[in-house]
Amino acid sequence: MRGPIAITMGDPAGIGAEVALKALDRSRLSRRTPVLLLGDALLWAAAAKRFKTRTRLVPVSGACEAASLVTAVGVMDLGGPWKVRVGKVDAACGAAAVRYILAGVRLALKKQVRALVTAPIHKEAVHKAGYKFPGHTEMLSEWSRTKDYAMMMAGGPFKITLLSIHVPLRAALKDVNGPNLDRKIALTRKALMGWFGVKKPRLAVAGLNPHAGEGGAFGNEEIRVIAPAVKRARALGWDVTGPHPPDTLFHRVSRGEFDAVVAMYHDQGLIPIKLAAFEKGVNLTLGLPFVRTSPDHGTAFDIAGGGTADPSSMLEALLLAERLSL
Amino acid sequence: MRGPIAITMGDPAGIGAEVALKALDRSRLSRRTPVLLLGDALLWAAAAKRFKTRTRLVPVSGACEAASLVTAVGVMDLGGPWKVRVGKVDAACGAAAVRYILAGVRLALKKQVRALVTAPIHKEAVHKAGYKFPGHTEMLSEWSRTKDYAMMMAGGPFKITLLSIHVPLRAALKDVNGPNLDRKIALTRKALMGWFGVKKPRLAVAGLNPHAGEGGAFGNEEIRVIAPAVKRARALGWDVTGPHPPDTLFHRVSRGEFDAVVAMYHDQGLIPIKLAAFEKGVNLTLGLPFVRTSPDHGTAFDIAGGGTADPSSMLEALLLAERLSL
Repeated sequence: MRGPIAITMGDPAGIGAEVALKALDRSRLSRRTPVLLLGDALLWAAAAKRFKTRTRLVPVSGACEAASLVTAVGVMDLGGPWKVRVGKVDAACGAAAVRYILAGVRLALKKQVRALVTAPIHKEAVHKAGYKFPGHTEMLSEWSRTKDYAMMMAGGPFKITLLSIHVPLRAALKDVNGPNLDRKIALTRKALMGWFGVKKPRLAVAGLNPHAGEGGAFGNEEIRVIAPAVKRARALGWDVTGPHPPDTLFHRVSRGEFDAVVAMYHDQGLIPIKLAAFEKGVNLTLGLPFVRTSPDHGTAFDIAGGGTADPSSMLEALLLAERLSL
Repeated sequence: MRGPIAITMGDPAGIGAEVALKALDRSRLSRRTPVLLLGDALLWAAAAKRFKTRTRLVPVSGACEAASLVTAVGVMDLGGPWKVRVGKVDAACGAAAVRYILAGVRLALKKQVRALVTAPIHKEAVHKAGYKFPGHTEMLSEWSRTKDYAMMMAGGPFKITLLSIHVPLRAALKDVNGPNLDRKIALTRKALMGWFGVKKPRLAVAGLNPHAGEGGAFGNEEIRVIAPAVKRARALGWDVTGPHPPDTLFHRVSRGEFDAVVAMYHDQGLIPIKLAAFEKGVNLTLGLPFVRTSPDHGTAFDIAGGGTADPSSMLEALLLAERLSL
């Protein structure tokens, strides 16, 4: 028995519960794989009623009980804010969202759940609650004592690991350095082999500059930093190539030339993935001792509570978590 | 009578003549619009024979004669290198390529040709010939005394003007400034109205940083530089919006929300266009007193002479030149 897939509610004032329940309806995931919802039990039930979802919710006290459910999903009550003002930044909601994640990490570390799928949190609410964390990744890595981690975006034909995430482009240039490249190349390769079952992963490392610098004419990071990292990886016998001209690389990937890309900065990877797989992208954290996925959108406070939230990305996150934790 | 569309041969050692003749065969353009080939007459004839193209070539002494041809295209002999070593960088080829462009610009300025389509040149060959020009754009702007110009890439659902082209990403950050934004926004709008016939162009200006800086948290160029430029444009009554988060913008454009995008750097614009319209992208120079398009590839010295060059992009360049000069 492998335990259920745990889904955290995210910020209670956002669209987390809505997209999670809608995605469960659509996927019929619970017929194949047990599911455990983490959050406020009353809020989960209220969302099910409000959005008229069909998946049956059953209160459970732990992952073990949830694992035995076949025509329903378990809900583990972790309490919530006293009052939820839908679509508003609120310290109590931020604190609750953090609590759900911590519970999920604990269960995952104890291997009581097979994977963790996290609904969106609101950075400002988390800060108001008193936490330093800028996002999920930092919590997950700290609580699981993971030093080397990376964000991979998966969607359509793409699996793209980012050298940096939410930093100014100017600062992202500094993250294009040897140690970071080595780490992200190794993490990407490991994830492809261990999680995705690719025996001999073909990894493409993107260039940073137009035409990958065109031999130094349009920038020298390729010569100074990226090519040496590719060389080090190849010296280990790995099928790693690059630096490739960024503008044509993603077309080549979409034709199946490579299994994954290491992208030099946020938008280099996100522009093609959002163009080719809009609202179907899934965020996957590499390096953790467990599988963790999340949808590629935020709390969407502007439409929270209205019933119009699109569960596509959450659905993909669930399906990927299931696939990677089989 | 509007005169023919002129096509320059580009570097005689490259694939210019091959893709031009193949594209003419495919498009049957000359049945509708007269065409004038600029270059070495013997080399044009040799290419037609070698690549077994069907479009009939007729020697002419000027644009006027070419304009009267209906079942053939005119070839204006501008001489060539004494000897062509296919696929090799050569000063004589570089010099010839420059000569063809100069001839084309002169004809265009005198309005003897309705548009100019340029086949690829080789930067190194041009340098070896003694010229300072890094590319077509600089020649075209200098010889036509154009100060404000810009490169637009058109392909699939996209028309994208770039704030900078062939510079390191680090240097491209400096090109994200007010005067450059003002110029490129104005040029893009003018091209859409004048050339593309869009009455009220909806222009999207991209952000520079992830999530367009997220209110300053991931960079402040949006607040300092881009938003003020958008505001200035809107004060003129123009439908200009932004800065938009780059990662989701191109999906929105592909759904028809905007007529064109002003992109902050080379790959921000080129990654989506090459993904959505690979080998169909066309380079269009804005701001010139005439229409000028070119295919979105280089001289391809590695495959020159082999007959395998893909004329798709040249074909698109011809069709766009025809459309814009009707």
